Amino acid sequence: MQANHNYSRISDSYLFSTIAQKIAAYSELHPDKNIIRLGIGDVTQPIVPAVIEALHQAVDEQATTETFRGYGPEGGYDFLKETIALHDFQELGLSIDSSEIFVSDGAKSDIANLQELFEKESIIAIGDPVYPVYIDSNVLAGRLGDWDETSGEWSELVYLASHSDNNFTPSLPTEKVDVIYLCYPNNPTGMTLTKEELQSWVDYALEHESLILFDAAYEAYIQEDGIPHSIYECDGAEHCAIEVRSFSKKAGFTGLRLGYTVVPKALTYQGKSLNHMWNRRQSTKFNGAPYIIQRAGWACYQEPAKSQIDENIQYYMDNARIIRDGLEEVGATVYGGVNAPYIWLKTPEGITSYEFFDKLLEDVQVVGTPGVGFGPSGEGYFRLTAFNTRENTEEAVERLQTFFREL
Amino acid sequence: MQANHNYSRISDSYLFSTIAQKIAAYSELHPDKNIIRLGIGDVTQPIVPAVIEALHQAVDEQATTETFRGYGPEGGYDFLKETIALHDFQELGLSIDSSEIFVSDGAKSDIANLQELFEKESIIAIGDPVYPVYIDSNVLAGRLGDWDETSGEWSELVYLASHSDNNFTPSLPTEKVDVIYLCYPNNPTGMTLTKEELQSWVDYALEHESLILFDAAYEAYIQEDGIPHSIYECDGAEHCAIEVRSFSKKAGFTGLRLGYTVVPKALTYQGKSLNHMWNRRQSTKFNGAPYIIQRAGWACYQEPAKSQIDENIQYYMDNARIIRDGLEEVGATVYGGVNAPYIWLKTPEGITSYEFFDKLLEDVQVVGTPGVGFGPSGEGYFRLTAFNTRENTEEAVERLQTFFREL
Repeated sequence: MQANHNYSRISDSYLFSTIAQKIAAYSELHPDKNIIRLGIGDVTQPIVPAVIEALHQAVDEQATTETFRGYGPEGGYDFLKETIALHDFQELGLSIDSSEIFVSDGAKSDIANLQELFEKESIIAIGDPVYPVYIDSNVLAGRLGDWDETSGEWSELVYLASHSDNNFTPSLPTEKVDVIYLCYPNNPTGMTLTKEELQSWVDYALEHESLILFDAAYEAYIQEDGIPHSIYECDGAEHCAIEVRSFSKKAGFTGLRLGYTVVPKALTYQGKSLNHMWNRRQSTKFNGAPYIIQRAGWACYQEPAKSQIDENIQYYMDNARIIRDGLEEVGATVYGGVNAPYIWLKTPEGITSYEFFDKLLEDVQVVGTPGVGFGPSGEGYFRLTAFNTRENTEEAVERLQTFFREL
Repeated sequence: MQANHNYSRISDSYLFSTIAQKIAAYSELHPDKNIIRLGIGDVTQPIVPAVIEALHQAVDEQATTETFRGYGPEGGYDFLKETIALHDFQELGLSIDSSEIFVSDGAKSDIANLQELFEKESIIAIGDPVYPVYIDSNVLAGRLGDWDETSGEWSELVYLASHSDNNFTPSLPTEKVDVIYLCYPNNPTGMTLTKEELQSWVDYALEHESLILFDAAYEAYIQEDGIPHSIYECDGAEHCAIEVRSFSKKAGFTGLRLGYTVVPKALTYQGKSLNHMWNRRQSTKFNGAPYIIQRAGWACYQEPAKSQIDENIQYYMDNARIIRDGLEEVGATVYGGVNAPYIWLKTPEGITSYEFFDKLLEDVQVVGTPGVGFGPSGEGYFRLTAFNTRENTEEAVERLQTFFREL
């Protein structure tokens, strides 16, 4: 048996595992120190009461022969798919149908698995910096060539650089690319594209017969008008884009595991329907999200859960504002945090993102994520998340202010 | 963008979807007929009371900040992995450690995803007949060559034929193969291997440096002594085998979605640890099974859930006996049903398995699965499942007896 050689291309450890190890090592040396974690983007608010109630009801349904549900449809129950199509798309005037919705155990799996739809030889462009799963999953499939230690880049990947010099709006590729990964509101920068900017990507994809994989996991955090909630707000996107959504950040489902992917029926390449292909992929290699979790997902769209969820989002966005304002007060340069729960902090002159991570942990015991972990354009930046309690957020801001004042 | 051409190799529809369509078409024409479904292997008994209680408790934990669980370890919580290692392995004298257990959303995903561990060019041998996911998932990865309509075989797959002539014990391959898929107790035949027979496969794999993917999803149904519950009962298996287990058939989790895969640390090829590789794969492309479902899995190993689950298994195995005995009474030839919830019925002389399916649906409204759907060696056989209520099982047997008597 020959082990898949592509696994040798990549480090054994995923970004967040590496960071967890660094924190664990520090904790062991300094057991008395109170570390505040604004690192990994995990929610901290519990599941809202109305969704808890829906979970209990669904659990009870599993207890009697009459209401027991075994295998469900691999792509999700109609009650959930129809609710999603209605509230997330049709009510916004977008003509997405429930047969174009595929419910899954989360955006991470979908984003990683969607690459099975295209050929191994495809030329891939990925927003930089970005959620590491896009790159790592393509490396494991042997698509991105070799790692170049000097440049900190994969040899066959087209990087779509986002940084303060271009106001975090990457330029269209100068060459023809086959597949484009975009994430807006962006993880990690917390920045967004306007509808016009996103339309230019759709136009590029239509012209070059490219496919856009649009990750809208943070859609629920958009506060300002004029920011697209879905790529299907752009003309022609149903002919060139797949959109991935998540209940994780929207409704705190990081531990419940639920997401969905939109594959429009109009999406065809060489006469092949990606909707049919994704259906074949999911029904062959996946057996659906748990019934009780799908019921919880359904409940998120009903009152009073909807308002309870909105309150949680507001809570996190208030945290984001507190972090932004607090850092600006001491002269730090910050981005994001307005339409997303992430603050993208410029590290002080001459300090790399990993040095900043170590220094912050050592000096004030605040944990964030080194920007370079999200890609080469992340060097010189640092991600802080709004996912914590108000108390911890305020305490972290005070410590960060002390840190910057003493710099 | 070039769509993955491997998807053109395979029919749009998965076996059980095709069958569901046939039943739906019949139902629409004959809305008055009462169809009994012994087709798809889905459980019918509800989740046992003690597991329902564990689910409710875990749901409540998600309701308060103090006990809320967000992202968990991708490979499963320690409380579950340690319980599995202890009860499913260590108590049987097998030295499997919790770090060798990877919890997932089910055996279907694992069996399909494990192929990412080996090279695309690997030579694959698969038990025939078998659960269609092994073949379909490899076809989608472009590994099995082309479909030959005449032989009903994939051009580059080594079929390990099981039929009445070899007492459902396939011969070892005459050539060297890289990866071997085995499923025991077998789906669909319901037949098993003795420990000595399984040892011969382990010995082959050790000699040829092959990898065995051992699917033990039906392990809990083994009733007779001398039938291996785990491949690790065989000498040296930790150097050549991965084992996949499921809570679906054991504890009725088909709608809850939980399984696990054992990747021993001793399993290395070209110096690469498959345990490390699988950990990398799962942490990059999967985010763990839901916390509440893992708590339910944990509860399955505790009393009183354990006894309640055993009762359900006994219930299904009584159904299996009723089907076996009833069919033998009218002179039908049947296999399986002793250590597995499946009965493998020989179709009457000159009737193909799909003809038999149609005839049975038409004449007595009993649904099973055509054997050939599980592979070429399944032609001339038909699968009936013990997963139904006692009442439906008895009624189905009466109808089958009428059918065979009138033949």
